[in-house]
Parts: sequence; structure tokens; C-alpha cells
Amino acid sequence: MADTTLMDKLVSLCKRRGFVFQSSEIYGGLGSVWDYGPLGVELKKNIKERWWRAMVHARDDIEGLDAAILMHPKVWEASGHVAGFTDPLVDCRTCKARFRADKVADAQCPQKPSKHPGEHSTCELTEPRLFNLMFKTFMGPMAESASVVYLRPETAQGIYVNYLNVLNSSRQRVPFGIAQIGKAFRNEITPGNFIFRTREFEQMEMQFFVKPGTDEEWFERWRGLRMAWHHELGLTPAKLRWHAHGDGELAHYAKAAYDIEYEFPFGWQEIEGIHNRTDFDLGRHQEHSGKKLEYFDQAANERYLPYVVETSAGADRVTLTVLADAYREEEVEGEIRVVLGFHPAVAPIKAAVLPLVKKDGMPELALELYHDLRRHLPMFYDDSGAIGRRYRRMDEAGTPFCFTIDGQTATDRTVTVRHRDTMSQERIGLDQILTWLLERSAG
Amino acid sequence: MADTTLMDKLVSLCKRRGFVFQSSEIYGGLGSVWDYGPLGVELKKNIKERWWRAMVHARDDIEGLDAAILMHPKVWEASGHVAGFTDPLVDCRTCKARFRADKVADAQCPQKPSKHPGEHSTCELTEPRLFNLMFKTFMGPMAESASVVYLRPETAQGIYVNYLNVLNSSRQRVPFGIAQIGKAFRNEITPGNFIFRTREFEQMEMQFFVKPGTDEEWFERWRGLRMAWHHELGLTPAKLRWHAHGDGELAHYAKAAYDIEYEFPFGWQEIEGIHNRTDFDLGRHQEHSGKKLEYFDQAANERYLPYVVETSAGADRVTLTVLADAYREEEVEGEIRVVLGFHPAVAPIKAAVLPLVKKDGMPELALELYHDLRRHLPMFYDDSGAIGRRYRRMDEAGTPFCFTIDGQTATDRTVTVRHRDTMSQERIGLDQILTWLLERSAG
Repeated sequence: MADTTLMDKLVSLCKRRGFVFQSSEIYGGLGSVWDYGPLGVELKKNIKERWWRAMVHARDDIEGLDAAILMHPKVWEASGHVAGFTDPLVDCRTCKARFRADKVADAQCPQKPSKHPGEHSTCELTEPRLFNLMFKTFMGPMAESASVVYLRPETAQGIYVNYLNVLNSSRQRVPFGIAQIGKAFRNEITPGNFIFRTREFEQMEMQFFVKPGTDEEWFERWRGLRMAWHHELGLTPAKLRWHAHGDGELAHYAKAAYDIEYEFPFGWQEIEGIHNRTDFDLGRHQEHSGKKLEYFDQAANERYLPYVVETSAGADRVTLTVLADAYREEEVEGEIRVVLGFHPAVAPIKAAVLPLVKKDGMPELALELYHDLRRHLPMFYDDSGAIGRRYRRMDEAGTPFCFTIDGQTATDRTVTVRHRDTMSQERIGLDQILTWLLERSAG
Repeated sequence: MADTTLMDKLVSLCKRRGFVFQSSEIYGGLGSVWDYGPLGVELKKNIKERWWRAMVHARDDIEGLDAAILMHPKVWEASGHVAGFTDPLVDCRTCKARFRADKVADAQCPQKPSKHPGEHSTCELTEPRLFNLMFKTFMGPMAESASVVYLRPETAQGIYVNYLNVLNSSRQRVPFGIAQIGKAFRNEITPGNFIFRTREFEQMEMQFFVKPGTDEEWFERWRGLRMAWHHELGLTPAKLRWHAHGDGELAHYAKAAYDIEYEFPFGWQEIEGIHNRTDFDLGRHQEHSGKKLEYFDQAANERYLPYVVETSAGADRVTLTVLADAYREEEVEGEIRVVLGFHPAVAPIKAAVLPLVKKDGMPELALELYHDLRRHLPMFYDDSGAIGRRYRRMDEAGTPFCFTIDGQTATDRTVTVRHRDTMSQERIGLDQILTWLLERSAG
């Protein structure tokens, strides 16, 4: 059952603490579009950076790419998106609303009540018509069919059309992969659940090119690697599971597909997909472009079109997963404590430096420590209000550690470390703090 | 005079070595849209990361933001872009081409020669009409005027509409700034010069909110800081200059504007603008949204609409600047050596590890060193071909250092460091390499 209260609390905390704001809020907002605030931009950056390091920097067999959002329209003819990336829609003749045909059989008009108060009209639905989910715009000065371009609905195609360029400019041989982080756009009829399903979103996609026949083995290997990555983010293992696509669910390009699902307050939902796309995409691009996209294996003296194993994660979805998984409320001394228990590696602020009181030289010592540490890691300085309230503010921001400068610090050069998760405290020497913190904040 | 040969060489190198590819090249390319390849994505990432560290992490008075590309259409009415972000265009009745009115007085038809060979027709131009440069699309299932949204033509507006949310969720007080890196789109009639002027581009913008009356002082301070940033990137100082906007050049929102220009092979061109935007934008959004956007200064018991000093740099332009500034050719032993002399902090690959020959245990030692270093920095391993050719490949990729494992390494645990810029060599202990390299690669 959907826990809407929990989502409401999370959305509210995200706004209050500067993680996520509604887009154009002063104009009443724009449906299902969200902006990342000061803490949110750091959280999402850390997640993307962690993905990039695991997928590109830590491996010899994957290259990075950053293709533009705008691409040649023929790309989307070849990929099948122009013809097939559609939802069936029906119109209601009574209320003029438009619905997804597979979601509103026998629906009461949800958008407009009848003109006669107290009485709901029944929808009179038209036959379903196919509605393409790609955003369309015009490039150049003429708004005509010849200048139609689309906002890409997936980043993957940018990888396929660059596959030969990457192969020729790097020293890779099959098997190898190309990884990319970037925006994609889908004109969803029913977006929702905060930053889970939005019309503008960011993908973290990797396409791994393999010899046909080795694709199933690589598919299993990538399933294992990707699930391990989510575990290493610190997500609750019991809230992660696999969902295998049955025959009816498989996309037109896929031979096999598994979703990694997370149990959100609104139910189990996909956060990443692992797909065996076979040679479908390269084959279509070879056919539509007339350019040979085969790979020549010199050692084996063989020529073939590689198969592709895709790992496709949503950066916004993983960010929401990290937020939802980190959120908890605890009763402490008769008050509710709200905590975001982020893994230190993705926490927007790694630690706060707090003078216990605003006198006796404590702020000076605290600022010195703060400035020292800030050259290495994102830090926060706070000297206003009771120390307990300052700890709570850092709990809500997900800051793993607080260093408190007190009366003892000037004498023995130690500070109190207060741990977010346990609220336990220990003393540590000023000269050890940087190493201590770097160790705990590393990926 | 434009040095087109140099630009051709740079474009060719960028493709060959995987810095920049033409978008959708297998389909003949898409006009003035480019993709970043394996080395280009790292170069651009390093530049953006350096900007983010200088503007956000190293300062207490600037917060980060990541607003969506899609915004409420009223934002662009308030900002003046719907009414005024236009170019005057004229049509030619003879050849049907369309031109910018301010660029083609008395032009011969450049796109189509006359139907009679050997004879050029003269353009018969219409009166100029205003053409809006914003890309327009439709959100939701209805393609009608009520659902028009625009791809943002600048990231700045995402900062203005979030200014109160940032102020309320952070602990900032005026003066403070909000920084953002993100894509923007302009349907330019005449894009060009490789990645200099493209229809899809990435901005690095910061809006600094100050008390009216202190704006001129902050304007000067930000001019100084931003020029210093470009110098610290290692750009040739003689190729950087200021261009002050005269009265006729000033944008409708600006009280003062200075461009930082770089001398490209195609001439002096803007890479960053520093603008005193006054309270124009906040004032317009206050008026159009009906929401009070004033700042209340508690200490002074004063209420006012802040002035804004903007620093607006193009991430693609700065990347092109770094590429163009780094490119050089030298004659070495009768051959041309092509070098990209990047500052080590932005170089895509920090160092290469090369076994002198593929035997005597050298590859094993080299791979061990390579894997050790790669946990900390982007590295490259290469064991194929003559050592001189391998050095040249790294010169073209802009890799500052090569560590060569030779016969001596197994005996005395030292390697040769070969410097890209001077081609000089020295020996260094295996156990010192990491510290040595980290020091030189730091920002």
C-alpha cells in the first residue's frame, strides 16, 4: 500500500532543506518538473560521480561519451521511436480530457466534474489513438516538417551512432563498453511520484558491445555488477529486488530484460534496467545509414555486428531512492528526530564544525578548522542556536559527522565528534581529523 | 585574419583522438551539433569541476543549483525573451533562402546559384521580420498554444525564480550568489566555428545578489575574479582581453557589461560575460508572478530588491579555448610533433605507463604501477609500438607525463619520467610516483 504521508514528508523536507524545489514555483509550478537546490545538486552530483568512477575510471574496457540531446531525426526512424514509441490515448467527448487507454477503462471523468453539481458525468470515450512520446521541435528558421528534430527519449542512441568513432579513436576491442550520463525527455501522459517519473530526466547508461554468443554470459555478469553497485550505495538490501520481464513485457529490441526494483513508499518500482538489446540497434542503424557498422576481429579474422548489453539507470530515480532509503524518524527524549542517513560518500556535506558557544575563542578555533577541512571536502560551519538544535539541523541535511569545539579544545587540542546515526560522541585530536574524515568519506 | 587551416587541423585532431565528434555523423551529421568523445568528455568535465570548485566549494557565499531545462512559459514572458529574444530575418523571393537582415544587405544568393549556369541571381529580399530564437515544444498530449513550453535560452532565469527558495533553505544573507551549470538552447540562424557557437550548449552561470549601490563595486570584484580564473587555467595571457559593451551593445537588462574575449584562430570572440543586470530580472518576476521577491535585511531593518551581478561563461567555449590554446606543432628531428599542452589539472589523462619493450618482465611491472595509480587518477597503459611513437600519441592526447619502465626498473625500482612539454627525461623512484603526480595534477 502506498505510504503517501511518508512521501509528503520527504517532499516537504526536500524543499525546506534545499534538496529539491518545484520548477517555476513562483508561477504555480510546471507539472512534474523539479529543480535541485544547494544540497540536492551535491547529492545528485556525488551519485553521478560515483557511477562514472565505477563504470569509466575504474575499468579499462569502458569509454566515456557525452552526446548532444539533439540528434539527426533519422536516428529515431532507425531506432523505431518515430513509429513505435507511443501510448494509446482516448479522448472523452464529455469532459474533453485525454487518458491512456490502458489505464482508464470505464473511468469517471477525473479532471472535470459535471456541470451539474453533485453529479459526475460518465466519460464517453473515443477509440484509442497512438500518441508519440517524443518532444518535437524545429531547428533553423523554418517551422516545417523538413526541420523537425526531437529531444532524445533515451541517451543510448547517442552511443550507437558514435560506436565506430569511439572504436577508431580509442584502443578498445570488443568486448568493450561506452558510458554516458545525460538528459532525456519523454512527454509522459501520467508523470508523477515526485522526481520518480518526470518528463525531463537524467540517465546513466552504458552499452557493452560483445561478440554474439557471449551476450548471455555478459548479461549475467552486468546484472551482478549493477546490483552490487546499488548495495554499495548503502541501500537497504531487503528493499532491492529483481523483476524479470516476461514475454509480453519485453521491449521490441530486447532478448532479455531485468529490472532492479526498489520498494518506494509508493510501491516497488524500477530504478535500473539491464537489457540484452542484441544487434537490433546497430543493425537498424547500419540499414538506415548505409554505413557498415561491423566489427572486425583481427585475431580471429572474423567480422560481425556486436550484440549489446545495456545497463540503464535513472540518475533522478537513484537520487530519490537514496533519499527515501535514508529518511527516518526517531523519538529522542520526547521529540521526533528526522534523519537522512546517507552513506558518507554521497552526503552533500561531509561534516559540520560547531563552536559549543560563541565565546572564549571557540568560534576562532572552529573557523580555522573549518577552513582547513573545506579545502579538501564540502563542510558546513554553524555557530547559531543551541548545540542540540544545530545537531538536528545537520541530521536533516544528512551530514554524517559534527566536530564540536568546546572549552577543552584550546587546552588539549581535541574536539568532540558527534555521529549522526548513533548520536554517540568521542574525542579526537585536531591533527587527526582530516585523515579520519577522508577515510570515512571515500567511495 | 582567420586561420582556417589551424581550425581544420584542430577539428581533425579532435575527431581522430576522440575529443569531439560530429553529432549523428553516420547520417551526414546535424548542423552545428557536436558530441564529446572519450577524451573530450573528461576534458570538459575537468573544466566544469574546476569552475564548480572555485565558485561553490571554495566559497561560503555561493550556493549551487541545478534547475530543469523546461520551465513555466510565463518565465520567458517576464524575462522579456518571448517579446524580445529575436533576430530580424529577411526572405529571398528568388532563392527562397532566409538571412539575418543585419548581415546580408545586397547579398548575392549564397545558397543557390541561378538556374542558368554561370549566372548568379540577385536576391529579392522581403522586409525584415522578427524571428524568435527560442526552441518551442509542447508539453502534454495536446499540441496547442496552451501547452507551449520553451527550451531555456539561458540558465540564469532558473536561478532567479529559485532565489527565494535558496535563500530560505540555506543560511545565506545578501550579498550571496547562486551558481549553476547546465544546457541551454538557441535556434541560431548562423551557428558555426566548431563548438564555439552551437544551438545546444552548456553554460556555467553565477548570479550574485547584492544591495543596490554596492553593485558597481561587486561588478569590479567579479571581473577581477573571473579573469584570474581563466589565467589560472593556463591560457596564454596575451590572448585574453576585455571588451566593454558600449551603449549600443548593452542588453535590455544590463547597466554595464564586459566580455572576456579570447583570440581564436577565427578572431577575438567572447568566452565569458560579466553583467550588471540590476534588479531588472527580479523586478520583472515580482511583477509577473505577483510574489514579493524583496530581501529583508534584519540588521539594518531595510527591505529592498537586490541587484544582480552575473558571470556567464560557456562550458563548450572554454573547452574550445583550452583546446585551441593548447594546440601547437613543433619540428622535432625532421618530423612534425603535434602537442596539446593542457594544464595537468584539466588533462583528460594525467599520465601514461609504458613498458619500454614487451618482455623481460617490463609489462608486468608497468601494469602493476598502472593499476596502483589508476585508483587515484585517470591513467593510460600502452605497450604497442616503438616508444617514440607512443610518446607522440600521448602528446596528441595532451597527457603531461609518461612513466617508462625499462631494464633498470627491476634492479633499482626507478622509472623514467618523460615530460610532454620539454621532452626532457628524469628518473624517479617507483614509491614516489603517486605523490609526485598528485601534486602536479591538483587544481
